[in-house]
Amino acid sequence: MYAIIMAGGSGTRFWPLSREKMPKQLLKIGGEDTLIRLTVARVLPLVRMEDIFIVANQSLADTISHQLSSKFPRSWDGNFILEPEAKNTAPALGLAALHLSQVDPESIMVVLAADHFIRKSADFLDLLRTAAKAAEGGYLVTLGIKPDRPETGYGYIKAGDACSEPDLSSIYKVQAFVEKPQRETAREYLKDGRYYWNSGIFVWKTGTLLSEIEKHIPPLHAGLMEIRKHIGTDREAEVVKEVFKSLDPISIDYAVMEKTDRAAVIPADIGWSDVGSWTALDDVSERNQAGNVVAGNVIDIGSSNSIVYAEKRLVATIGLNNMVVVDTPDATLVCSKDRAQDVKKIVDELKKRKAEEHLIHRTVYRPWGSYTVLEEGDRYKIKRIEVNPGAKLSHQMHHHRSEHWVVVAGTARVTNGDREYDVHPNESTYIPISTKHRLENLGKIPLQIIEVQNGEYLGEDDIVRFDDDYNRHATNTRRPLPQVNKEVV
Amino acid sequence: MYAIIMAGGSGTRFWPLSREKMPKQLLKIGGEDTLIRLTVARVLPLVRMEDIFIVANQSLADTISHQLSSKFPRSWDGNFILEPEAKNTAPALGLAALHLSQVDPESIMVVLAADHFIRKSADFLDLLRTAAKAAEGGYLVTLGIKPDRPETGYGYIKAGDACSEPDLSSIYKVQAFVEKPQRETAREYLKDGRYYWNSGIFVWKTGTLLSEIEKHIPPLHAGLMEIRKHIGTDREAEVVKEVFKSLDPISIDYAVMEKTDRAAVIPADIGWSDVGSWTALDDVSERNQAGNVVAGNVIDIGSSNSIVYAEKRLVATIGLNNMVVVDTPDATLVCSKDRAQDVKKIVDELKKRKAEEHLIHRTVYRPWGSYTVLEEGDRYKIKRIEVNPGAKLSHQMHHHRSEHWVVVAGTARVTNGDREYDVHPNESTYIPISTKHRLENLGKIPLQIIEVQNGEYLGEDDIVRFDDDYNRHATNTRRPLPQVNKEVV
Repeated sequence: MYAIIMAGGSGTRFWPLSREKMPKQLLKIGGEDTLIRLTVARVLPLVRMEDIFIVANQSLADTISHQLSSKFPRSWDGNFILEPEAKNTAPALGLAALHLSQVDPESIMVVLAADHFIRKSADFLDLLRTAAKAAEGGYLVTLGIKPDRPETGYGYIKAGDACSEPDLSSIYKVQAFVEKPQRETAREYLKDGRYYWNSGIFVWKTGTLLSEIEKHIPPLHAGLMEIRKHIGTDREAEVVKEVFKSLDPISIDYAVMEKTDRAAVIPADIGWSDVGSWTALDDVSERNQAGNVVAGNVIDIGSSNSIVYAEKRLVATIGLNNMVVVDTPDATLVCSKDRAQDVKKIVDELKKRKAEEHLIHRTVYRPWGSYTVLEEGDRYKIKRIEVNPGAKLSHQMHHHRSEHWVVVAGTARVTNGDREYDVHPNESTYIPISTKHRLENLGKIPLQIIEVQNGEYLGEDDIVRFDDDYNRHATNTRRPLPQVNKEVV
Repeated sequence: MYAIIMAGGSGTRFWPLSREKMPKQLLKIGGEDTLIRLTVARVLPLVRMEDIFIVANQSLADTISHQLSSKFPRSWDGNFILEPEAKNTAPALGLAALHLSQVDPESIMVVLAADHFIRKSADFLDLLRTAAKAAEGGYLVTLGIKPDRPETGYGYIKAGDACSEPDLSSIYKVQAFVEKPQRETAREYLKDGRYYWNSGIFVWKTGTLLSEIEKHIPPLHAGLMEIRKHIGTDREAEVVKEVFKSLDPISIDYAVMEKTDRAAVIPADIGWSDVGSWTALDDVSERNQAGNVVAGNVIDIGSSNSIVYAEKRLVATIGLNNMVVVDTPDATLVCSKDRAQDVKKIVDELKKRKAEEHLIHRTVYRPWGSYTVLEEGDRYKIKRIEVNPGAKLSHQMHHHRSEHWVVVAGTARVTNGDREYDVHPNESTYIPISTKHRLENLGKIPLQIIEVQNGEYLGEDDIVRFDDDYNRHATNTRRPLPQVNKEVV
C-alpha cells in the first residue's frame, strides 16, 4: 500500500498565519503538530515511510522535506513527486500513478490531503483497510464523511446500493456526485441519510486509475505515456514540464469519479475536518468555557465564541463575540467569523498591491536553517540568521551589499574571500561588497548571527551562488523525479 | 495672562498607543499634531511662550520639552513646574499659583488640560478673554460645555443667575456642581438647558486662588508657605518633595470650586472633547462613508462604525461593526466600542504581570534622540539608535554588556576608552564590557546606528553615567523648580 499526499495548497484561507511559501499543511493549526506531519504519522501503521509520496511544487519541497526530516529522521528528498505547475488533481495523481505503476501496477494507492484533520486515527485506518479490499476488486473508493450539519461548503456523494462482494457490505456504490448545495437542500441531505461529504480521500489500485484516466482523460493518458518513455533519462524533468504545460487543469472528481461506473463510497465517522477556514478551529481545537479558542500571548476580558491567536506579540481583546483575531510578526487579521471565507480577498488585495505579506513570513525557512527580517530601512536591512548544526549556506557573493555579522550564539566558520576563520559569540566580522563568502555551523548547537546589511539594493535576488549543499546554484526550476523503489523493481 | 497646562495624565485609556511614559497628551490622536502641542498652539494668540507653564512629573518633562522644542524652537526646560508626585489637581495648581504669585499676584491664570481637543479655537479664545474679565473681578471661572447628548461620564455644573457686572452677562454664577448622573437624570439635564459639562478648564486670578486655598485647604496653604520660604535655595526641591508627600490628594473641583461662593461658569460651544477613550475618535476624527475612522496600513473589507489604527505593520479587517482595533509594534488591542472604558483593565493586568507593554513603547525617546528595541533574545538585544544632529549621549559604562555598533546613516563620533574616532555608514565598532564610552552626532543629519548588545544582563539600569549634557548622572529624581520670569521681577 502506497500513500500519495497531496500538498499543493496555496495558503490563502489561513492568512496571515499561512503564506504562499508557508501554506496551512506546514502549520500547527489546532493541533500539537503541523498538519502534514500529522498526516504522515497517521498512516505509518499502514504504510512504510519509503512508500509515502508527497505531491508538491518545487518551491515547497525543501520546506516540507526539512519539516518531515526533523520529525521523522531520514532523508525525505526521494519521497517527492514534483508538479512543475499546478493543474488541479487529475494530472498530479496521473503522474503519481505512473510512477507507482513502474513499481507495481497492482499496488494500492491511498490518496490523502496534507492539510486535513482527522481526530479518530484508528477508525480512519480501519476504513482504509476495508477500502483497500474494495480497491483490490477494482473499485475507486472515496471516503464519504457522515454529515453532522447542513454544510453548504462541500460537495456531496449520494450512496446507492451496498457492494455485493463479501466483506464489502459497508461500502456503497456511488449513485451520484452532487455540487455544493443550497442551505435547504443541505438540510434535506442531512435528513435523508444517504448523502456524504466528499472528503477528497481516495483508495484505488494504481492500474485501475490509469485505465480510467485512459478512458476518461485521453490527453492526460497520452501525456503520461510520453513521460514514461523518458523516465530515468536526462530529459525526464523537461518532458514532465512540457506535458504539464499542455494539459488542462481538471480535478480527479470531475474527470474520473463522476464518470466512472466503478466509484464506491465508504461512510466515515472519523472526526474529519478539511480545516477550510479559521472557523474550523472551533472543530479541531479545545474551546474554553466562554466558547473561545485562545492561543499565545493573549489577555482577554469578556469575549465569547471567538478565536484569538497570537504569536510573540501581545494581543489584548475586550468584549469580542464571534470574531477571529490572528496576529503574526508582520500582519494582523481581525475578522467576523461569518466572513472567514473573505480572508482570501485580503490575499488577493495584497497581491494586487504587490505587497509581501501574502507571500512570505518575516521568518523564512531554508534548507540550512532560517532567517528573520528584523527591520528594513533606507539602505540597510537587519536579519537574525539561524544555521542548523552541521549546515552551511551556499558559497555566495552580493553585488550590491556588504554585511556585518555579529555572532550571538554558537560558533561561525566564515569564509571571507581567501580567508577562513571562526567567529565566536560577542565577536563580529565584515563581508565587503562583491566578496565571495560562506557561513557554516560546524558546532553542535544552532548558530545565531545578527546581520546588518548595507547597500543601495537589498533584494534577496542579489545573490550569486558558487557552490551549494542544496544544489541551488543550478537553475533551480526543476528536480529529477524520484526513482521510486528501484530496489523493488 | 499665564497658561498652566496640566500634563499629568497617566496614559491608560489609549493603550496600546499611550503608555505610562507616553501618555495621550504626547500622541497625535485624531489630529495633525500631538494634543499638547495643539494645546500650546491654541493659546499662543493670548499667551506668550515664556508665560506658559507645564505641570508634569519629572519622568515626562524631558519628553514634553523635546516635543515642544521640535515644534516651537526654543528651550522649554524653564517652563516646567514639576510635581514630585501626583496628588490630584489642587496641590499642583497651588504650586503653580505660588510661583505665579512670586511674579505677580494680580496675574490671570488660565488652567488647561494638555490632552483635550477643541475644534473651535477662535471661539475658545473669545471665551477666555471674557472669562479673564470675570477673573479680574474675583470670580473663579470654569468653562461649562454645552451638552449635546445625555452623557453620563462627566460631572455637570448647574448655572444660576447671570453675573450682574457690566460685560459679564454671558457668565453665570454656579448654583451647584453635580456628580456624574444616571442616564435618566442626564436626559433631564440636557432638556433643562442650565446644566453644563465640567471641562476642567479654569480662569482665575492667582491671588484669588491662593486665598481660596487658604480658606478651604489650610494644610495645602501651609505647605505652599513653607515652600515659599525656600524658593531659590538649595533646599527648594527637597522641601517641595516633603510638602507633597505630606498632602492628601484632592481635586480643585472638590476642594475649592464646590465650596467657594465665587464660582462662575461660562457656557462654551467650542467643539470640545476630553478624548476620554478610543471612542472619542468618532468625535475628533473624520469618518468615512461606512462610519469608520481608519488610519495607517489597513486593508478593510466591509467594516462599519469601527476605528482601525495601524502604525507600520499591516492590519486587515473584515466585517467589523462597532469595534476598535489599534496596532502598535509590540501590542494590539481589539475591543468592542461598548467596552472601550475597560482598556484600563488591560493595563492593570499588565502591571500585575509585571509586563512592559503598559509602560513603554518599543521606541523610547530620550533628550538626545530615541532608541527602538528590535529584538531581545538570550544574552543579546538589538536596538536601532537615532541621535539628533548636535546631540550626544552621556559618557557611560556598562558592567554586564558589550556593544557592537554598525552605523547605517550619518557619522558617529565615538569615544571608546581613551580613543576618540569617527565611524561612518557601513563601518562598525566594538565597545568592550566595562569600557567608558560615548556616542555623539557632530553632523547635520540624524545619526542611525544598529547596536547589538551581548551580555548576561541587558537591563536599561546597567549604566554608569560620568558626564551628561542632560544632568542625568545626578540622582535623577528631581530638578530645581524654574525661576519663573526673574527678568520680570
